[in-house]
Amino acid sequence: MTLSFGASCSVEEVAASCDAVRFFQLYVYKRRDIAVNLVQRAEKSGYKAIVLTADVPRLGRREADIKNKMIVPQLKNLEGLMSTEVVSVKGSNFEAYANETIDSSLCWRDIAWLKSTTNLPILIKGILTREDAIKAMEVGAAGIIVSNHGARQLDYTPATISVLEEVVQAVGRRVPVLLDGGVRRGTDVFKALALGAQAVLVGRPVIYGLAAKGEAGVRKVMHMLKDELELTMALAGCPSVKDISRSHVRTDRDRLQSML
Amino acid sequence: MTLSFGASCSVEEVAASCDAVRFFQLYVYKRRDIAVNLVQRAEKSGYKAIVLTADVPRLGRREADIKNKMIVPQLKNLEGLMSTEVVSVKGSNFEAYANETIDSSLCWRDIAWLKSTTNLPILIKGILTREDAIKAMEVGAAGIIVSNHGARQLDYTPATISVLEEVVQAVGRRVPVLLDGGVRRGTDVFKALALGAQAVLVGRPVIYGLAAKGEAGVRKVMHMLKDELELTMALAGCPSVKDISRSHVRTDRDRLQSML
Amino acid sequence: MTLSFGASCSVEEVAASCDAVRFFQLYVYKRRDIAVNLVQRAEKSGYKAIVLTADVPRLGRREADIKNKMIVPQLKNLEGLMSTEVVSVKGSNFEAYANETIDSSLCWRDIAWLKSTTNLPILIKGILTREDAIKAMEVGAAGIIVSNHGARQLDYTPATISVLEEVVQAVGRRVPVLLDGGVRRGTDVFKALALGAQAVLVGRPVIYGLAAKGEAGVRKVMHMLKDELELTMALAGCPSVKDISRSHVRTDRDRLQSML
Amino acid sequence: MTLSFGASCSVEEVAASCDAVRFFQLYVYKRRDIAVNLVQRAEKSGYKAIVLTADVPRLGRREADIKNKMIVPQLKNLEGLMSTEVVSVKGSNFEAYANETIDSSLCWRDIAWLKSTTNLPILIKGILTREDAIKAMEVGAAGIIVSNHGARQLDYTPATISVLEEVVQAVGRRVPVLLDGGVRRGTDVFKALALGAQAVLVGRPVIYGLAAKGEAGVRKVMHMLKDELELTMALAGCPSVKDISRSHVRTDRDRLQSML
Repeated sequence: MTLSFGASCSVEEVAASCDAVRFFQLYVYKRRDIAVNLVQRAEKSGYKAIVLTADVPRLGRREADIKNKMIVPQLKNLEGLMSTEVVSVKGSNFEAYANETIDSSLCWRDIAWLKSTTNLPILIKGILTREDAIKAMEVGAAGIIVSNHGARQLDYTPATISVLEEVVQAVGRRVPVLLDGGVRRGTDVFKALALGAQAVLVGRPVIYGLAAKGEAGVRKVMHMLKDELELTMALAGCPSVKDISRSHVRTDRDRLQSML
Repeated sequence: MTLSFGASCSVEEVAASCDAVRFFQLYVYKRRDIAVNLVQRAEKSGYKAIVLTADVPRLGRREADIKNKMIVPQLKNLEGLMSTEVVSVKGSNFEAYANETIDSSLCWRDIAWLKSTTNLPILIKGILTREDAIKAMEVGAAGIIVSNHGARQLDYTPATISVLEEVVQAVGRRVPVLLDGGVRRGTDVFKALALGAQAVLVGRPVIYGLAAKGEAGVRKVMHMLKDELELTMALAGCPSVKDISRSHVRTDRDRLQSML
Repeated sequence: MTLSFGASCSVEEVAASCDAVRFFQLYVYKRRDIAVNLVQRAEKSGYKAIVLTADVPRLGRREADIKNKMIVPQLKNLEGLMSTEVVSVKGSNFEAYANETIDSSLCWRDIAWLKSTTNLPILIKGILTREDAIKAMEVGAAGIIVSNHGARQLDYTPATISVLEEVVQAVGRRVPVLLDGGVRRGTDVFKALALGAQAVLVGRPVIYGLAAKGEAGVRKVMHMLKDELELTMALAGCPSVKDISRSHVRTDRDRLQSML
Repeated sequence: MTLSFGASCSVEEVAASCDAVRFFQLYVYKRRDIAVNLVQRAEKSGYKAIVLTADVPRLGRREADIKNKMIVPQLKNLEGLMSTEVVSVKGSNFEAYANETIDSSLCWRDIAWLKSTTNLPILIKGILTREDAIKAMEVGAAGIIVSNHGARQLDYTPATISVLEEVVQAVGRRVPVLLDGGVRRGTDVFKALALGAQAVLVGRPVIYGLAAKGEAGVRKVMHMLKDELELTMALAGCPSVKDISRSHVRTDRDRLQSML
């Protein structure tokens, strides 16, 4: 599982209550000491990787948040480090807070700095093109997460499944490629694996399960996704995950090329 | 006509009341003796071919069935052979029964075994790709049925009409290719024949006719399909079925190629 | 104007009340004497061409007609020649009448016979492919009307505008190509002319005008189409009809080719 | 800003109340003295360019205007020069007025005449094709505005964003290319700049802001567009406008070519 920087439980609390392989998702603030503090706490608490959020130099224009005057969530990880109170503003308080704190100058060079603060591997999250995937490998990323931030950052961003293969081909198995975004069914997981993702990350289904039935709902959602993936594998003739191959799915590109 | 394994009348009852050319559609259970029993009864009762269902190693996730707690239909053919009662489960009882009984290990090698149990030709139903069509011929299938099981097995399965030509080209007239799925009008039959199917199979229209008006409804549906096919042939300038040719329909591929 | 075989006024009545250039649209019945009678009356009455309906060997399955038990229209041209009464049937009486009377054996060879009965030029209506256009010229058609019979004959027939260019290229200006179907606005006329039609024929707009406001409505519709065509020409920079050229419209094919 | 010929304030009034770089949008009337009068007043009042409207030889068929009996707006710039009263007509009075006054004979040769009346650069507005862009440069246009007049002149006109690149390539940076039409969000501005426009013009968003909240609404709209453009630039990794490049957007053509 990947624990969000902005979770309502701290890295230590989650580590204490869960045996899963855990990654920690980092936002880099202007106050770089906060990143260092969190990365080192994650490392000490047994997290296996740092997931660096690369697609939020500024928060996207989230109109529902503006309309609803979204407040800043309680950031348990920041307790004692900084206040999350913001002077009340028109529109989204969360946006105001994010743009005040986040370091929008974060760039490729900063990966070296981040690596110097930890022994954990760094995965870069928010890659959507071949060019950025190559750049990420050059600066030492241990893995790539193809993500458009749930399409909440920028209108007209491509669907992650539609650019996955471009990234996979650029990476050429040198580092793992993961994908998030749009995964709702086992068939979605199957497609991503067939197109070369090593794994997929799911966000909203978990939240929906939580909202509907609490912890039991989350278990149910994860169970459903696993069952559906197995069923899809069975019906596609794949006894194991490594039998899922590129020929098991047909993309727009395949379709076009088969017509020529 | 093709009699389903799960019909509410037995192979013998249907044979006694009907002069049509009859095929028998087989599901292979873990208890292989049941398949042998049914194949031999079909052969003795004058059925002309065995239609082997190849696309149900597990039952697809049929959400309406789950919601409605679908029960197991009365399988008249299995009377005296095995019980169809299942311990009541949450969700679809039919799914629980199917996954308990069906032999999900069925594979290409088993065609040889099936052929050894009967003199009837074996048609393999559930082929959707060139690769599987070639494999089916290699293991001795006497014919191929392009089918996606009414799209009830797996989301994102291709429409059968869209893959028919790929299969027809792979088969190259060595064995007959039939199609089911999506046939609702005479124009649908015409398209399948034009793309190289030797015949089409229809399921739901017959059931709809039955539900609406019983036996008379079925007759009416079959009559309507036949009339519509003749009308389509007349308007396309085809005096007989063998005059229906590839040039009578235009596919997406044809359209693309005509634009290049 | 083109007078329909099935009009509620006779060829003579229309000739007497109208100075327009007139064509006569012919259906060939099993009783070939009726065709001869009508063609000769049209010729005597000053009609300029015979429009031979080639796409109705049988009447299409018109479900609204079946549901509404469509009756046979009064065919004024046939008065004294034959009765249009039909024994009442279930469904469309018009369909029953049409299929009883129309000669479904009409074929390319019959054009020679039809030409032998008149000095008028014969236009063949209902051509949708390059192959049929070439055939029509070979048997001596003086012109071609690209038509799908208002899409009332067969589902999945192509839109006439989408096949016009194929026919125009096959004909290569040897005979005029006209188009009907889907013409509702001046922009539609403009497109057909740009793609090489010599003229367009309009049916439904005239009927709609008639239904709404009688003769004044028809005038209004024709006026509107003419105004819209002129406006389209002005805005496309075409001072006269002969300035409308292929480069004034962009088809799917043009679009695809510009992207390659 | 571009002041419309038909504005409710005169060129002088707007110049007196606004420091912005101002262009003046000209319609050429049959009475050419009016064009000369206005161009010279614009020049004297410090406007920086004349925007010649090239796509209104006649007013398009605006059916809402016809239905609503659109009246002629008060043309403040024409006070003392000519009356804008028209004899009441059925339908749109505005259309009747426009077609009575506008010089539909305006053509490429007239650019020389227009240039002879002023030292201001002439931008031609209403270019949608490579051919017209080249012609515009040949007759001495100082710039090109890709515009379809808000799609109010002719149905089936292409979206301006879809033809921008064709024009940009034809122009090859010899003169500036601007775009209007369909600009509602900062992402729209970003796309146009990425495809090679030097600037975009916005019409309706300004009017909507004005209608909703007067002058404050206009400010808000302009602010919003600017904010959204900056946000899009930040999320696309473009620190300045000149960093926005062709590779930041993907068109249908790019997509097709990446699939071949």
